[in-house]
Formats: sequence, C-alpha cells, structure tokens
Amino acid sequence: MATLREEALHMHRINKGKLESKSKIPVRNAKDLSLAYSPGVAEPCKEIFDDVSNVYEYTMKGNMVAVVSDGTAVLGLGNIGPEAALPVMEGKAVLFKSFAGVDAFPICLATNDVEKIIETVKLLEPTFGGVNLEDIAAPNCFVIEERLKKECNIPIFHDDQHGTAIVTAAGLLNALKLTGKSISEVKVVANGAGSAGIACVKLMQRMGVKDVILCDTKGAIYEGRPVGMNPVKDQIAKVTNRDKLQGKLEDVIKGTDVFIGVSVEGAVTKEMLLSMNADPVIFAMANPVPEIMPEDAKAAGASVIGTGRSDFPNQINNVLAFPGIFRGALDVHATNINEEMKIAAVEAIASLVSEEELNADYVIPAPFDPRVAPAVAKAVAKAAMETGVARRKVNPDDVEAKTKKLAIID
Amino acid sequence: MATLREEALHMHRINKGKLESKSKIPVRNAKDLSLAYSPGVAEPCKEIFDDVSNVYEYTMKGNMVAVVSDGTAVLGLGNIGPEAALPVMEGKAVLFKSFAGVDAFPICLATNDVEKIIETVKLLEPTFGGVNLEDIAAPNCFVIEERLKKECNIPIFHDDQHGTAIVTAAGLLNALKLTGKSISEVKVVANGAGSAGIACVKLMQRMGVKDVILCDTKGAIYEGRPVGMNPVKDQIAKVTNRDKLQGKLEDVIKGTDVFIGVSVEGAVTKEMLLSMNADPVIFAMANPVPEIMPEDAKAAGASVIGTGRSDFPNQINNVLAFPGIFRGALDVHATNINEEMKIAAVEAIASLVSEEELNADYVIPAPFDPRVAPAVAKAVAKAAMETGVARRKVNPDDVEAKTKKLAIID
Repeated sequence: MATLREEALHMHRINKGKLESKSKIPVRNAKDLSLAYSPGVAEPCKEIFDDVSNVYEYTMKGNMVAVVSDGTAVLGLGNIGPEAALPVMEGKAVLFKSFAGVDAFPICLATNDVEKIIETVKLLEPTFGGVNLEDIAAPNCFVIEERLKKECNIPIFHDDQHGTAIVTAAGLLNALKLTGKSISEVKVVANGAGSAGIACVKLMQRMGVKDVILCDTKGAIYEGRPVGMNPVKDQIAKVTNRDKLQGKLEDVIKGTDVFIGVSVEGAVTKEMLLSMNADPVIFAMANPVPEIMPEDAKAAGASVIGTGRSDFPNQINNVLAFPGIFRGALDVHATNINEEMKIAAVEAIASLVSEEELNADYVIPAPFDPRVAPAVAKAVAKAAMETGVARRKVNPDDVEAKTKKLAIID
Repeated sequence: MATLREEALHMHRINKGKLESKSKIPVRNAKDLSLAYSPGVAEPCKEIFDDVSNVYEYTMKGNMVAVVSDGTAVLGLGNIGPEAALPVMEGKAVLFKSFAGVDAFPICLATNDVEKIIETVKLLEPTFGGVNLEDIAAPNCFVIEERLKKECNIPIFHDDQHGTAIVTAAGLLNALKLTGKSISEVKVVANGAGSAGIACVKLMQRMGVKDVILCDTKGAIYEGRPVGMNPVKDQIAKVTNRDKLQGKLEDVIKGTDVFIGVSVEGAVTKEMLLSMNADPVIFAMANPVPEIMPEDAKAAGASVIGTGRSDFPNQINNVLAFPGIFRGALDVHATNINEEMKIAAVEAIASLVSEEELNADYVIPAPFDPRVAPAVAKAVAKAAMETGVARRKVNPDDVEAKTKKLAIID
C-alpha cells in the first residue's frame, strides 16, 4: 500500500499541482470573442475608468484573494524558499475555493525583504479583493501585516496569526463552558512566541482573558527581559504577565487553567500539567506531533484536549476560519478585517456546538462541518457592516445562503 | 436588440469578470485534505527544496503564465490604469486557456515606473512559467521586455509587439506568394512607431525584407531626425530607411510594395495607394477602424488587404500566435522565446494556408481555425529545442497532439 508520502507525490505529479485558471464563459466563435475580448471588452474598461469602484462589478477582483508567501516559515519545514512553498499556497487556494467559493491565487515572492514584500503587495492591489499572508516568518510577518493594513484598501489577513487564534479562541470558549470557569478569571499560559502565539494571546485578551503569560524557548516573557526579545515581544511583555514572573514554562505553568501550545513536540510534560489548577484545558497544537499527546494529557488530569491533528478529537484547524472570513469580507467589499470581525468569527464557530452536544471530545466543529463557512461568512459580513468597514450593504442571510451554495465540500 | 456595448456589460456583470481559480482535485474529506494540504503537501515541498527544478513536476508553475500590464496603453483607450485594464487581462487569460490549455492569470500593477515593474515581475518569477507583457506603453515596454529577458529564467513575451509582428509576417509571406514578389526585393513602408510597428519592422527584416521605412506622426524616421525621436526610434533609424528619405508618409509611400499600418483610422488614402507600385499589399490594422477601409484600398488597386477586424477577410489577430507560442515554450520549459521560435511561429501560421486555397481573401488562417495553436506549439517547441533554450526534450508531435486535446475552441 502506498504511503502518504508516495500518494501525495503521485497526486501532485500527475496533476502538475492543484490549481488552474478557468474561464467563466465560452469562447467558441467570433461573437464570443467580440464580447470577451476586442472590441466588446472596451465597454467594462470604460466603465471602470469612469468610476474605479466598478472594478467590483465587471471583473474577478471582488472574489479573488492573493495567497502571498515568501516561503520563510512553511509548515514545520522552515525557510524553504518561494518555489518550495508553492504547493502549500496552491493548497490554500484550493481550500478557499472548496470551502467558500473564494477564488484564490498563490503569489510566492523571490525575496524576504520586508519593504519589497510590502511594495509588491501594494502594486498587486488592483487585481485582488483581499490578501491572505501565509507562512512568512516572525517578526517580519507582523511588520508586513501592520503596514499593509494601513497602506491598502483591501482586507489583509495573516492566517498563521489570526486563523489559528480565532479557532483556538472558539475552542476555548466552549471548553470553559464545560469546565464552568469564566474567561475573565482563568489563568492562561501560552508557549511559542511566533506569529500564532502572539496572535492567540492578543485575541484571548480581547475576548476577556485578563491573566496570561507568553513563553518562548527562553521561558516567560516579561518586560525588560535581557535576552531573546524583539519589538513584538517587547510590546506583548507590556500587556501580559502582570506579575512579571520569570522562569521556565515549568515554573509559570503552575496554578494556571489553560495551556495554549503553538511550539514543538514534547514542550509540555505530564508533571507540568499536574502542577496546573484542577480541570485544565490543554490545546497542544504543535504539528505534526503535539506538545503532549492527548492520552498523556488526559492521564495528567486535562479536562479538554485539542490538537492540530485530524486523528484526535477537537482538531484546531484554520480551515474553520479563513474561507468564511474572506467570504464575508469580500461580499461586503470590506476595506479591512478588523477585531470585531475576528471575534464574530470566533463566536460563530463556537456557537455551532450546541449545549446538548458539547462534551470534552467536542468543543469545536469538525473541519468538514458544512455549516461552518456559511455561519462564519454571515457573522463576519454583519460585523463588517456594523463597524463601518463595509463598502456595500448585503443581507447577512444571503451571504450564508450563497456560501452554502458555493462550497463544494459535502 | 441589445447593442454590443449592452451585451458586453451584461456578460461581465453577471459573471463578475471572466476568470476564476479552479481546483484540479477534490477536497471532500479528511483524506483529500491530508494530501492536498497538511501533512501530505510537505512531501512535494521537500522535493522542490532539494531540487528547485522539481517545481515544474509538482506545481502549477509550468503551465501558468502571468499576463502583466500597467494599464498605460489598453486597446485604443490609452492610459486607463490597472483596474480598468483588468477586463482585458482577464480576457487574455481566457484566450490562453481556451485556445491552448495554457493557464494564465492577470497581474495589473499599480505603477508605471519601469524599475518597479521590472522588479515586481522578477519577484513573481517563482510562481509563473512565463510572462506575457500586455498593453504597456512605448517606449517603456521595450525597456521592460529587454531587461526582463536578461534577468529572468522564464519566457518573457510582449504580445503587442511580437504577436502582431508574427501574424503580420505570416500574412505577408502568403500575400507575396500571391503577388509573385520576393521578400528580399519588396519595398515596405510601415506607419506607427509604437510597440507593434517597431516589432513588425524588426521581424520583417529578420525574415528577409531589405528595404523598409518606418513612419510616425512626424513622417519618415531617419537617422538624426531632429524631432520626435526616442532611443528605440534612434536604433531603428540606423537599420531602416537606407536612403535617409525625409518627408511625410505620403512622400515615402511612393513606389513601395507593402503598407503596414499600426496607426490610426484614415492614416492612409486612396491617393497614397495609387502612388505605390503595382499590386500593393495593404495591412491596415488600426482598431477599430483601419487606416483605409478595404473597399477603398481595393478601388485603389490593392492586391491583398488585411485588417484587425473579424468582419473583413484576412483578419490579423494575435490569437493566432500567443496561445500556441506559450504552449510550445512551456512544454519544453523554455528559458526564453527567441527569434528562431518567433519565425517558426510565422512559418507555421503561413503554411496552414495551402497553395490551392491561397487567394486574395485568404492569406491567413481564421482565428478559430483549430489547426493553428497546435501547429504553432509544435513549431515553437521544435525551434526551442534546436536553439538550446529548452530545458526539456519532448516530441514535437506530442506537443501538437496535446494542444489539440487541451484547446476548447471547436
């Protein structure tokens, strides 16, 4: 029997990748040609020249997302370069289309210079309705996203940060319902200060978490720590770890209620879990091997365990978030994906697990739950309109119905 | 009945443009997801990281062309900007796919700075197997193409120059067969010193034309002309107009055998045609209205008349060239589209009109002749292999058969 490696290579080889361009219209005779190309095509061109907002009416832009990477932090493979990153970006584009009918196109850039990446994306803005940044290493990813959000008029979203944070927060909301703890009172420790870890901490704070410590390989991050800091860690140090605790993860995990792992295999042990408060919630999302295996976490008293893997319960998978988020943002011609839209996505995902269904092995919907992208799209479109970043008004129910129709998952 | 304008706007509006992304594979369950995305996708990534040439084996790159424009010279509309150019670039992408199964994607850039355009295309190189430059104003287009050809390892082709030149040259070869004149002896005058005019002159010279004069709005271009010159015109002046004739088009057209018009409506008159040698060949390709209407040209003694229009015989349409040229170049992983490949395309197009069929109203195949792209692809692939720009050997007959299979024109 073929291994996963053999199957994956075979599938990519026989198809020459996974993505193609496709015409929405037939071009079979001179009449078709006169509409799709010269002379008929001049008419939409003129309409857009007269009013550039018409580009959303007559072109693909409004449904087209760029999946932009420099190939510096690809999966667990690290800095493998833009060509080697292309299979991942094609895959991401395929997921956008399959889960929410969003057209997406890989843009793998032959540079990891922050300014060049920013400028290139800005120059590409006329073609795209949104930009999904992907697999760009920290701390560059923070600078690139922040600058592009300011300097572009289309939604910019770094999925490694916000996708992970949104799905994790959704799982956390439901896990806390189960354990009967309040989000404003739980103590949280997160391990891994890359893009996902930073974003998880920020979003949890916005959702009400007051007590959170972020650790990296040097241990707890605190203001003024003399080693291993960068501007993003300096900033996070100011708003986390209010008691300025120092020490390793094993020191600061004591007496906490929630562990968020976006680090590496084996980063947390049974002993550490035993030092936490009763009924701890453990999201061990290192890929492909979690910080602690679910059976070990359970043996050490964990009440809810989530991982990034499909072969365990509670899979924290970004695919629950990004397709619906962009679907909702695109449908209202959003200029931005703001915090309210992210929180709307969190709540939409969490609410799909009913109180009756909620249990330790089911705090988050499955990746192929067909309700997810439509619900997220609806909530995000609504939040965009309510917060003034929508350039177009739509009925949120229509967004949900459209997403259901466009998705090709079963 | 709806006008062409109404029909074109309606078609673009209901479809939201003409191009979409499409997955080549199903993503319907966890198994599909594990192959298309994490963890399976890591396998082709690793293969490409080990040997970057594997990007052609496992990704879309080898079949994906960027259609790059800055929107400065769009159709006859001029500098309308990148958003307003998008319908044309989508249309071009649709033609690539429909005529030769080449995937293509519009890249409309928010700059008309030469250096920025060059840098952006270079940064995009990992994603694309080739670049079709489109509707970029002269003289920038010359600099951009020349630099990119030097600095990239994938084929760069400015269709407004070379597509037009190739199809015109094919028509000229057959027209001269009809009139019994030899290409090395005919006198040619071309009107319009934009990208198409310059390229037509250069290609005709390479095909054997010895006596050619290029005119612009100031009249004949000659070495040292004091007004309206630029570096490209300086260069062309050195190799054309060997008698350094001065004067308007009406002066220098006297006694020539061939008129090539890539200028504007009404640029040439009956009187001018009457001053040409017997049986002149007239390609009046201004769009949408030719330099002289075919009935007037015929009345003034023209033996063969070609235009850019589908409602007259002998339509000089770039779609006869670019799909097959890129099909052939991509199939051998060409690093370049060189002069030999262009001439191979000219000869392939011309040879599809048999001696028996050849007549004044049929010197060039029709745009929807299904033999064209396969024949061009075969000839171009062969020429690429013979001139050392192919990174991969293929059987030219296989290229032809594949193109036939992929094309969706009838």
